[in-house]
Amino acid sequence: MTDFAATKARFILPDGVIYLDGNSLGPLPRAVADHVGSAITDEWGQMLITGWNKAGWMALPRALGDRLGRLIGAGEGHVVLGDTLSVKVYQALASALAMVPDRRVILSDTGNFPSDLYMAEGLIGMLGDGYELRTVAPEDVADAIDDTVAVLMLTEVDYRTGRKHDMAALTARAHAVGAVTVWDLAHTAGAVEVDLAGARADFAVGCTYKYLNGGPGAPAFIYVAPRHADTAVPALSGWLGHDAPFAFDLSYRPGAGIERMRIGTPPILQMRALEAAMDIWDSVDMADLRATSVALCERFIAGVEAACPMLELASPRDAARRGSQVSFRFDDGYAAMQALIARGVIGDFRAPDIMRFGFTPLFIDAGDVDAAVAIITDVMTTRAWDRPEYKVRAAVT
Amino acid sequence: MTDFAATKARFILPDGVIYLDGNSLGPLPRAVADHVGSAITDEWGQMLITGWNKAGWMALPRALGDRLGRLIGAGEGHVVLGDTLSVKVYQALASALAMVPDRRVILSDTGNFPSDLYMAEGLIGMLGDGYELRTVAPEDVADAIDDTVAVLMLTEVDYRTGRKHDMAALTARAHAVGAVTVWDLAHTAGAVEVDLAGARADFAVGCTYKYLNGGPGAPAFIYVAPRHADTAVPALSGWLGHDAPFAFDLSYRPGAGIERMRIGTPPILQMRALEAAMDIWDSVDMADLRATSVALCERFIAGVEAACPMLELASPRDAARRGSQVSFRFDDGYAAMQALIARGVIGDFRAPDIMRFGFTPLFIDAGDVDAAVAIITDVMTTRAWDRPEYKVRAAVT
Repeated sequence: MTDFAATKARFILPDGVIYLDGNSLGPLPRAVADHVGSAITDEWGQMLITGWNKAGWMALPRALGDRLGRLIGAGEGHVVLGDTLSVKVYQALASALAMVPDRRVILSDTGNFPSDLYMAEGLIGMLGDGYELRTVAPEDVADAIDDTVAVLMLTEVDYRTGRKHDMAALTARAHAVGAVTVWDLAHTAGAVEVDLAGARADFAVGCTYKYLNGGPGAPAFIYVAPRHADTAVPALSGWLGHDAPFAFDLSYRPGAGIERMRIGTPPILQMRALEAAMDIWDSVDMADLRATSVALCERFIAGVEAACPMLELASPRDAARRGSQVSFRFDDGYAAMQALIARGVIGDFRAPDIMRFGFTPLFIDAGDVDAAVAIITDVMTTRAWDRPEYKVRAAVT
Repeated sequence: MTDFAATKARFILPDGVIYLDGNSLGPLPRAVADHVGSAITDEWGQMLITGWNKAGWMALPRALGDRLGRLIGAGEGHVVLGDTLSVKVYQALASALAMVPDRRVILSDTGNFPSDLYMAEGLIGMLGDGYELRTVAPEDVADAIDDTVAVLMLTEVDYRTGRKHDMAALTARAHAVGAVTVWDLAHTAGAVEVDLAGARADFAVGCTYKYLNGGPGAPAFIYVAPRHADTAVPALSGWLGHDAPFAFDLSYRPGAGIERMRIGTPPILQMRALEAAMDIWDSVDMADLRATSVALCERFIAGVEAACPMLELASPRDAARRGSQVSFRFDDGYAAMQALIARGVIGDFRAPDIMRFGFTPLFIDAGDVDAAVAIITDVMTTRAWDRPEYKVRAAVT
């Protein structure tokens, strides 16, 4: 059984804060400062350029990918880190489209994270030639999978509501009509059990700054199913995805397997931060994590619903159809969230009316849930949010 | 007059090392460890998600772009940081091609960094429709600019030889036939004076881990001429380039000016490292830097040529046609460079036979040049490089 009291002790959490926003930016693992400090002082400072070999910098994107792979049902050698999630979405989508050259439709849903849709728009704008991004409501996705679809591109867990798609079922349905799948695991990796290999997902991408606690701007990851890895066209074909980057050939020749999905020079300081975070993950069993996450979410929903009738549950009530977050709708949700943050309960707001709370067993326990429910109850029942200063929108929400 | 003794004191340089590879990875500024440490402990650790506003994280890509802009002749608001250089090459190239829809040729040269050519290959592979990457020898570029060329894509300074293109002249020639230019400043930014506005360059990109000393995997930058900034199509259209990222609209609407070239979440730890490096640059006059760089390079060439006839100068002899590096050809260059590194003179090797030495006035002075020349002379004249262990190639050269 995973010892979540022990994992909690491995994070720095500010006094007086109940942090229910690890689904947006995970908190700081205690080991990061020293680990990144050493990468700066001992590696960059002393090894200089030789750090690429001596400190193993060049191998980090794959080494971290292997450790992350265990959390998402990917075998060793099938995941690599790098770039931002949006760039990895583009890369996966372009590769997937190239596998179905006779079709022109990318199917997605209106619950997808907007950047995924924007990257698809940019891609089809360049491709021209009749390519189309078709978006339907999340509940209509299954029925919209037909033999015009080249690629089914979905985020498994909805960033606003926490609604969770059935990856295995939708992937099977896509494969049955000859379509290829791209799954965005931004709100899944480190949040719920994922079995990419079992679901026969074709491509998957995700970020590491949310549940994985890699820090602000931590690198993204990409997974390519082993059956595609040696034939996928990387589209963003950079030198570190070349079969022999330091031969400096004038023509591109893709590297073996997942290596070809690398693009440029990896961000070593961010990777060292993520590495310290992954040390915590090595002690976590994903089935334990999921069971604990469900228990925390259920406790939170029950507590809030009992005391705050003005908040409408926006997340699925069925835990099996929900990720590791709970969202409520409230017309003045922005102000209410500012009032909560002022009281030390940090969640976040997603336009137009979603108050979002993430539950992350690595550092949130039942006591935190009860304390948060008490503060939410007080803020909502006394209308403590109804103050002008809580209604001024910040640049970043 | 810039005080280069003072700038040198702001770097940590290992004892016994003469570091002539700042053109590959700049050394560690003293201020980085504390600055990044504070970003980890005080910002990420204590502010958590609110760091995006409170610590100004979201504004860093533009703020750093403005400071960097001064070094490359770009006005404020025309440069933004993010991603890797390869990704920025792709983004600039795609935007440039879209501006000349009736032409199909990308013209580049065989002295370009391979990743730029690879990214172009990936792009035209996706576009199909007759697009072509045409590469000629560096000295033939001017004559190859004709009215079939859509985009002229060049790296200003050759990564192997240090040969420097005439940006203003080639840009004028490209414009005269209706082509658009993409300049890669990887070996120019922080190395020589650049005047993007004066040269009327259309797009420029570069990295910050070489002469700018931003650290391993530091973010890249992109410049868009103000006359194009509000019409350029970003191609890699991510949410942080959206006009209103936190409105979470389902459709992309490009942000104002250079903002649209942002893609995903910026790597904050890398950006804080770069910020500490930029503090040093604020004290540097680029004309002083260039004059000092030329003097160092001339001193090095004279010293090596006088003592080492087996080394053939691969860089232009005319300083005006050279960047801030000096390269020599030598058949056993790989082994020779390993022998030099073992003696504390760190340069690097570029296949097939280039020994490359970078001269960076911020932390290299005439005394360093003389000491390096003495060691090179000893290694070459005694054939100290002719040992089996120096001939074993490392993964990263």
